[in-house]
Amino acid sequence: LMANLELVRGTRDFLPEEKIFRDRIISIFRTAFENYGFVPIETPAIEKWETLSAKFAGGASILEETYNFDDRAGRKIGLRYDLTVPLARVVAMNPNLIMPFKRYSIDKVWRYEEFKPGRYREFYQCDCDIVGVKSMLAESECFSMAVNIFSKLGFDDYIIKLNNRKILSALLDYAGIKTKKDEVFLIIDKLDKMGSDEASKMLIEIGIKKEKIEKLFKTLQIKGSSEKILVELEKLISKNEGIDELREILSYGKLMGFGSRIQISLSLVRGLSYYTGTIFEFSVSESKIGTITAGGRYDSMISKFAGKENEIPAFGISFGIERIIDVMKKRNMYKSESSLTKVFTAPILDKVLPDAIVIAENLRKKGINTEIEMLSRTLKKQLEYADKKGIEYVVILGEKEISEKMATVRNMKTKEEKKINFNDIYSIIK
Amino acid sequence: LMANLELVRGTRDFLPEEKIFRDRIISIFRTAFENYGFVPIETPAIEKWETLSAKFAGGASILEETYNFDDRAGRKIGLRYDLTVPLARVVAMNPNLIMPFKRYSIDKVWRYEEFKPGRYREFYQCDCDIVGVKSMLAESECFSMAVNIFSKLGFDDYIIKLNNRKILSALLDYAGIKTKKDEVFLIIDKLDKMGSDEASKMLIEIGIKKEKIEKLFKTLQIKGSSEKILVELEKLISKNEGIDELREILSYGKLMGFGSRIQISLSLVRGLSYYTGTIFEFSVSESKIGTITAGGRYDSMISKFAGKENEIPAFGISFGIERIIDVMKKRNMYKSESSLTKVFTAPILDKVLPDAIVIAENLRKKGINTEIEMLSRTLKKQLEYADKKGIEYVVILGEKEISEKMATVRNMKTKEEKKINFNDIYSIIK
Repeated sequence: LMANLELVRGTRDFLPEEKIFRDRIISIFRTAFENYGFVPIETPAIEKWETLSAKFAGGASILEETYNFDDRAGRKIGLRYDLTVPLARVVAMNPNLIMPFKRYSIDKVWRYEEFKPGRYREFYQCDCDIVGVKSMLAESECFSMAVNIFSKLGFDDYIIKLNNRKILSALLDYAGIKTKKDEVFLIIDKLDKMGSDEASKMLIEIGIKKEKIEKLFKTLQIKGSSEKILVELEKLISKNEGIDELREILSYGKLMGFGSRIQISLSLVRGLSYYTGTIFEFSVSESKIGTITAGGRYDSMISKFAGKENEIPAFGISFGIERIIDVMKKRNMYKSESSLTKVFTAPILDKVLPDAIVIAENLRKKGINTEIEMLSRTLKKQLEYADKKGIEYVVILGEKEISEKMATVRNMKTKEEKKINFNDIYSIIK
Repeated sequence: LMANLELVRGTRDFLPEEKIFRDRIISIFRTAFENYGFVPIETPAIEKWETLSAKFAGGASILEETYNFDDRAGRKIGLRYDLTVPLARVVAMNPNLIMPFKRYSIDKVWRYEEFKPGRYREFYQCDCDIVGVKSMLAESECFSMAVNIFSKLGFDDYIIKLNNRKILSALLDYAGIKTKKDEVFLIIDKLDKMGSDEASKMLIEIGIKKEKIEKLFKTLQIKGSSEKILVELEKLISKNEGIDELREILSYGKLMGFGSRIQISLSLVRGLSYYTGTIFEFSVSESKIGTITAGGRYDSMISKFAGKENEIPAFGISFGIERIIDVMKKRNMYKSESSLTKVFTAPILDKVLPDAIVIAENLRKKGINTEIEMLSRTLKKQLEYADKKGIEYVVILGEKEISEKMATVRNMKTKEEKKINFNDIYSIIK
């Protein structure tokens, strides 16, 4: 082996078996996205640093993880770290886009993250965003679509944790917390993981008074049915858009069938600072895996990008496609395939190769994925090859048979063999 | 607009209309590749510099165009400039791959090329390679597949220029040229473009004697049918593997139907130094566009990568997907679509929105791509939207109709409207 022949750390090759599986998953996503009226766009992998580092974009911590370099003209460019910033740029640069703009993108992003198992430095994101819609129909359509996708993928054990930044803000007001709101949010976000004692300590450290913390935590810990939580909330923060928005989602949820999966989770924050309303997570039961899809509403980020005063509302759902694939593999939720070929034509002698070619070309024309033996191997070796690749049928051609325009079709699973006329091969195989 | 909001030079956004078109083209390629028994693989966009700069890979001039940078640990990495080097790396690193290994990749590459119209710094390559096959069946299958693809895309006016490096070498021997063969090849490659006077001058400049040049040019200018050229060649270079290989391809070409497109072009060289046998180009008639697909056989490159003594034969065809798309656009060879949605459900009043939702969700479940009005617009505006997006049907829902479970289905092309029961919407639309 050539010295140092290895992959860049955190990157992966997808060999056929893995790639075929990933393509199937991606095809399920695309079909569902298009079924709900989304259209695809594609943006470059490399973006100007000015775009990636815009102050209303991903934020300082993500920039630390961003691959960047100078091109030969000395311009600083970087590999994109998400698909949301490019979307904001596209909307800002194309004021004539038809609204609402429902776009999907399934594409690679790069982050120079700490190297851990299950973490990659080059990985896929899979995003749907609806730009130009304030109504909670945007949220609800995406939830309904996600539920359909998870059902097609074979997931059933997940809930939709739902919250709203407007409620969180009101609860901070209610508790009398008026400063360091963003820092408080970040601590609340980890409340479930670290417990209230630890979170309390951290809040005290940044200068929040104990009585305020206790008042806040009491509200965050309201539990029960969605309706019960909303009723309790209304007693504390009577008029709140966030509550109205959650109610709206719940009512659409009844019509669309995802209502029973909703679990209002008042301590859910989601890290990004650009969220302005709805925030949510789809979580599976395994605690180690947790979130498989997440997102939220960001009504002001795009208009800031565009330098416009009027809000350009937007809601996005990001499917954690890498994590979904990992879970599906762990749970054996897929059929492994190392080939997409259905028929292998096996000439026993070089002399009959022309017939093998003609048969293969005819099958191909009829849409049957077909391979021809190219190595003049023995029949035994050819059958081994077809078996290893999981090919369903082998068309065996010998000298005698050929003279009568006959071939033997072998079903590789049942090991059944049938001697038939050339013209009947397709009808057996299709 | 935010200051400096622009794309990196030589990169492009694909907005829905463009992206939908590109996806359709890519889907035609994939279907054909799989039809011929190829499987997909995917490799990282970023590779170690040691891999990209291996001396048997793309060569020094391509490295000058390669984006490279140090990661935070000080390791030099680069953005891949083609898909062949990653393939060689994959084969070298995975000695257990089942042979023959027929893989396809359709993916982005990056080159910091001189900035010209129609040239991109981030662009797609679309490659099929067959590893492990010495037989000209590899070449022939790829040609047959390409002919099928071009027929599906709507191309008919192209030829397959074909040559073999083994013949070129023999012709140099015949002319008595024993040194600077690679430089001579590069000059021959431009013979057709610059004419024989200019080429002759350049050959003299690198020290080739006039009589040798004349002897060489006389052979390169042999014209006529493929068979005639081969017969003439045999008179000069009696025993040559390259001639046998061309004959083999021609005979498969008769069986597979691409034979009539073959034009043996003795001055065809193809730039890359790793080609060892067959070289070819698919060219359309417009002289400005020229080559739309090209490739060749490289029997020693992968084994050098793997550090093995035994040859690992390989043949590759690279579809010039960017150029093919450009030609198709220039020739109006595609139907522009700005949406993939078939039905738009248009509630006239917010009151009937729940019915619109239920209707839309039912159509979606049946596989019909459907959108719902999300902006509470007037019917007129909703119809304008559906029209702009090229949506075929609008389901109009008013208060009166709803009470009788009736809706009006409007065909946006014919402008025909039909009032029908909710349950019959699908049967009209499908």
